Amino acid sequence: MTDADATAVVDCYQDLRDRLIHAGVLIGSTVKGLYGKGAAFVHVFDGLDALVTEAGQVDQPELMRFPPLLPREHFVRTDYVRSFPDLIGSVHSFLGGDREHAALLQTLADDGPWSTELDPTELVLVPAACYPIYPTISGILPRGGRTFDVLGSCFRHEGSDDPARMMTFHQHEFVHVGTPESALAFRNRWLERSQILMKSIGLDVADEVANDPFFGRAGRMLAANQRGDALKFEVVATVANPEKSTAIVSCNCHQDHLTIPFGINTHDGGVAHSACVGFGMERIVLALFARHGMDLELWPREYRSRLGV
Amino acid sequence: MTDADATAVVDCYQDLRDRLIHAGVLIGSTVKGLYGKGAAFVHVFDGLDALVTEAGQVDQPELMRFPPLLPREHFVRTDYVRSFPDLIGSVHSFLGGDREHAALLQTLADDGPWSTELDPTELVLVPAACYPIYPTISGILPRGGRTFDVLGSCFRHEGSDDPARMMTFHQHEFVHVGTPESALAFRNRWLERSQILMKSIGLDVADEVANDPFFGRAGRMLAANQRGDALKFEVVATVANPEKSTAIVSCNCHQDHLTIPFGINTHDGGVAHSACVGFGMERIVLALFARHGMDLELWPREYRSRLGV
Repeated sequence: MTDADATAVVDCYQDLRDRLIHAGVLIGSTVKGLYGKGAAFVHVFDGLDALVTEAGQVDQPELMRFPPLLPREHFVRTDYVRSFPDLIGSVHSFLGGDREHAALLQTLADDGPWSTELDPTELVLVPAACYPIYPTISGILPRGGRTFDVLGSCFRHEGSDDPARMMTFHQHEFVHVGTPESALAFRNRWLERSQILMKSIGLDVADEVANDPFFGRAGRMLAANQRGDALKFEVVATVANPEKSTAIVSCNCHQDHLTIPFGINTHDGGVAHSACVGFGMERIVLALFARHGMDLELWPREYRSRLGV
Repeated sequence: MTDADATAVVDCYQDLRDRLIHAGVLIGSTVKGLYGKGAAFVHVFDGLDALVTEAGQVDQPELMRFPPLLPREHFVRTDYVRSFPDLIGSVHSFLGGDREHAALLQTLADDGPWSTELDPTELVLVPAACYPIYPTISGILPRGGRTFDVLGSCFRHEGSDDPARMMTFHQHEFVHVGTPESALAFRNRWLERSQILMKSIGLDVADEVANDPFFGRAGRMLAANQRGDALKFEVVATVANPEKSTAIVSCNCHQDHLTIPFGINTHDGGVAHSACVGFGMERIVLALFARHGMDLELWPREYRSRLGV
């Protein structure tokens, strides 16, 4: 990419960001990638969420909701620290007494690095909505496996000019844990279903093999393996950048990456596999505003009706 | 309190916690104060949220939603680090390169304190749902002030046996920023309105002057001042402990504590005051299960109908 191309990309991000904020769809903050949402955004989000929930009923999923935080001891059983250390959100707090508190306040008053005086807690921010499920289902699955409906707030520490790359965002996921065959079939069904759903609200979508941002030198090999295995697909649409589409849904077969660490087995004692479809809720909402315009009243009637806005 | 009394309190917390988890209303975790929620909890939460939203329409609030994280630079402009350092959630991440990553992975493999190798980010967890509003409204208010509807995920680092004292929870708040008179009147109206709402779903409630857990020796004075000023009230109900009621709604006049740090003035150039009513959503839902029982089907028809469950 030349410097001029890079500038053009940043410009198209800032253009969409400015239009969203001007229209009150998003509320800006002083931190890149951190936004509040206005009424129009919230109404579209809620309408979309209802459509996603409805689309998932065919699998009769178990409804679960988890907080934005996860026990650290579970987090470290996954590959996350190896693969995406730069995206981690570790929660630290003040564990001292009066004396240490006085010192903390002095550091703060001196405009010093007060946060480094804090200590790690037993919690980290959830990086993907399905992570909290696996520790709760250790053991033997029923015949046919289990399927879950989760919606959660996720965190990835990546400030970006692109309004579609938020540091905190919601994933609405359906997750299946069962045999290797049932997990793969689940991912494949949702790769089709999710595109039908996205087209029904007026988005032009396609699917492609995922390309996750694995960290560092070793990460280049992990990324190549991911592409080679074709275990994770993304449904993409145009949001800010007409030259480069944005992943709005992911359909991922984790094989045994999450079932072995949490000791999850099939009914006949084999190692279970898991798969999920994750709807990137904020990204889909932004794709809709980018596609249909900043004024909800001017959206095509068909899509407003589908979304109930 | 005698040792026997303290044991009895812990017992009543654990008894409610066990019943909630057994019924699938809550999903336990390995960290005290961190819970997932099952379908029955989610349906009651959603029904309650609709009732709260409806009750707020009389003030025609501006709808805003914020993520669970706040810019650190805004957080430190409030009194939080002085008053509640032990409840803080500061977000730290990995900011190094390949070499530091290799060291981090080695520490992790050695079961060492890997989290202390992380660095503070520009973000902290939101302690109360209204905090993110104030930085966005710096400047002059319109005549009549502004009123907001926010629902957000909040964090307080306090592991507890009491299921009603979660580390992450939702507050649905209505916030008014205006003159000293309009702020105080707003708080007083909601102290009455919120109790009517809670009674309409079958909760026996009362109001009392709030008693926040200010930190340390200096905190004892802050707590005494808070009680003396009678600026913050709580609506309380019985959840786990029949001997000690739990705050489920708070009605708080902040005076200029949040408007001065963020430079918010009234239309005529005076210092604005702010006030809020905060519905502690998880606590209200748990109060309902404690009151009406673990089986939604057996709840009085009147309350099921009100809540749409």
